[in-house]
Amino acid sequence: MSAAARDAAALDESDPLAAYRARFVGTEDPGILYLDGNSLGRPVRDLPERLTRFVEHEWGERLIRGWDEGWFDQPLTLGDRLGRVVLGAAPGQTIVGDSTTVSLYKLIRAALAAQPGRRTIVVDRGNFPTDRYVVQGIAAECGASIAWLDPDPASGVTVDDVRGVLTGDTAAVVLSHVAYRSGYVADVPGISAAAHEAGALVVWDLCHSVGALPIRLDEWGVDFATGCTYKYLNGGPGSPAFLYVSAELIERASQPIQGWMGARDPFVMGPDYAPADGIRRFVSGTPPVFAMLPMVAMLDLIEEAGIDAIRAKSLALTGLAIELSDELLAPRGATLATPREPALRGGHITVDHPAFPELIATLWRAGVIPDFRRPDGIRLGLSPLSTSFAEVDMGVRRIAAELAAATT
Amino acid sequence: MSAAARDAAALDESDPLAAYRARFVGTEDPGILYLDGNSLGRPVRDLPERLTRFVEHEWGERLIRGWDEGWFDQPLTLGDRLGRVVLGAAPGQTIVGDSTTVSLYKLIRAALAAQPGRRTIVVDRGNFPTDRYVVQGIAAECGASIAWLDPDPASGVTVDDVRGVLTGDTAAVVLSHVAYRSGYVADVPGISAAAHEAGALVVWDLCHSVGALPIRLDEWGVDFATGCTYKYLNGGPGSPAFLYVSAELIERASQPIQGWMGARDPFVMGPDYAPADGIRRFVSGTPPVFAMLPMVAMLDLIEEAGIDAIRAKSLALTGLAIELSDELLAPRGATLATPREPALRGGHITVDHPAFPELIATLWRAGVIPDFRRPDGIRLGLSPLSTSFAEVDMGVRRIAAELAAATT
Repeated sequence: MSAAARDAAALDESDPLAAYRARFVGTEDPGILYLDGNSLGRPVRDLPERLTRFVEHEWGERLIRGWDEGWFDQPLTLGDRLGRVVLGAAPGQTIVGDSTTVSLYKLIRAALAAQPGRRTIVVDRGNFPTDRYVVQGIAAECGASIAWLDPDPASGVTVDDVRGVLTGDTAAVVLSHVAYRSGYVADVPGISAAAHEAGALVVWDLCHSVGALPIRLDEWGVDFATGCTYKYLNGGPGSPAFLYVSAELIERASQPIQGWMGARDPFVMGPDYAPADGIRRFVSGTPPVFAMLPMVAMLDLIEEAGIDAIRAKSLALTGLAIELSDELLAPRGATLATPREPALRGGHITVDHPAFPELIATLWRAGVIPDFRRPDGIRLGLSPLSTSFAEVDMGVRRIAAELAAATT
Repeated sequence: MSAAARDAAALDESDPLAAYRARFVGTEDPGILYLDGNSLGRPVRDLPERLTRFVEHEWGERLIRGWDEGWFDQPLTLGDRLGRVVLGAAPGQTIVGDSTTVSLYKLIRAALAAQPGRRTIVVDRGNFPTDRYVVQGIAAECGASIAWLDPDPASGVTVDDVRGVLTGDTAAVVLSHVAYRSGYVADVPGISAAAHEAGALVVWDLCHSVGALPIRLDEWGVDFATGCTYKYLNGGPGSPAFLYVSAELIERASQPIQGWMGARDPFVMGPDYAPADGIRRFVSGTPPVFAMLPMVAMLDLIEEAGIDAIRAKSLALTGLAIELSDELLAPRGATLATPREPALRGGHITVDHPAFPELIATLWRAGVIPDFRRPDGIRLGLSPLSTSFAEVDMGVRRIAAELAAATT
């Protein structure tokens, strides 16, 4: 038994969160090593019961009355709960609904609208495609310019990088808290403060951090934020995103997709749109109440475990993965694309090797399931409550064995 | 027993679709008379099993591999199925995702973008608030004008009404197939042809018709259409909308919310957004796969029953409701806000009476559940597969009894 394997066993034994693993569907199957919880979290085990209860009672018995009995406010009540449990946001600033893409669109448009006279959007080339594509679309339609950041891909955007491009024309800075490929953790309070000094607003994408890292949106002075809920919030494929607007901005902010549900008096159905008071003005269509159910099951577990304990386990999981990568993958030419310093590392790591593009299909067929990110990265996304240290240990060993077979 | 009551019993006995009622959750409860299937359809009875299977197998076992095994194409494959079963659309023109509000936004923006030099949008004051509010938002941001139609609220928009406002500046006509309040059925092919003659495009809202009336989008020459799936498609609270673009327009159409999933090669994650070929370019964010499950259960039933049989029962249900309203509500001063001619009537009827605003809470508490629409309408939305004639009969009698108590 290698040092790392002994570590894995010992780490599972002393893991205060170990018991949570059994509360997810599929974790009892030894044939699956799941290393992609940051693309799609596993379902919580009691979810089928919750869904049955919802279908048979809340929906099936209460029927349309459900809208008066909680559903209408569900984007706000669940938003407030996300604010409390994982976002560090006081009530009244967060809603759930739409996709991350649509939320980004609304927020960046809102940022531009709040900044008359400023027409430049800062975004980095390493950001997730959706963020870049949304910015490109908005720039084209609004006649805005894009100031591209081009940070070292192995790390990420720094305060100095951002300071270097801020001008009196910068309306908004659009960045990710945790980089989707490298896992680099951006300095959200530092960058937000730098943007504010230059009179710009910030839009943070929290897709790869929410549920894995402590977030303090209010304390960090964030203006706008959004993120998906199917990664570390285990909301299921395509679950709705959340959207945050700081209390200070809400009442003067506007968004372009004006629907019934974001209007001041929806049931009056008046002739002209007037935005609702508060964060509800960021709601557009009918809230996806049914689609919110899986994430609620996960939020229960996160609240019980506590986000600080989750972060501690996350760092131990990625630390073990790095140790194993150094021991087993690096000797075959693989390189770590993720910061080694714990404070700069999100919930996943990426390891690059030219042979990886060929290996991924074989690994998946064998039940070893990391993700792949171009050009040649294997990404290990280690969802803290559902992943064991043994799973990481066995997973990296299987990747090493396939790499050995492919490179000898 | 009155004539109408005898009719109800006889109609249930001879109803070829009567057996479907048992296939919905809650229909066994005699304490609930559900007359609001056009706001929220009942859940299909086997939905809990389907959801459990999805959570435990498709999601829980296949995990991220699900995206390669069907989920990625799910907006298109389910769209094609909607096209075949309820929309009269050939494959490759329909997707599922987003809310109706967001879909309307994309489509109206697409219509404007496809009509350079034309800056007027036609919409009617009787249209659902979301349609009007989305148009108002787009007009403001794009510098477009609105040409308001003001049809008789008891009927709806006619070909002549539309002809009366069309000009060489008209870019798009935004109307509903079935009016949300009166239930009036617009002449989709006639109005679309009139718009086309004037060089304008049409955007049809099908929220109140899809699943209850036969629709022939391709045959009718419709350019753009959208609609929700939680009414007669029983998709559950806040289920995703569908979006249709005619084959002729897709390749030259563009929409403003550019996400990863609508890009040409999403997994290349290239530097610049290029729209995917075909209808996929109208996808923005990650498809709401989990949220699509309930409507699939309903589509199975609709396909089995056939939309023509469903329409026949729908007309019989609303016909009985009108007969009962004439017999029991009209003598107390209630007036029918819905066309009597079957061809002009959707799947619901609305009856107005000044006392109705006060009655609705009492009715709901008593398990008699119609909808209410300002200023004083009770709307009966009679979902054909889950509603019995006896339910309509008892429901209207209970409304009549409450009205009698309130007006004597």
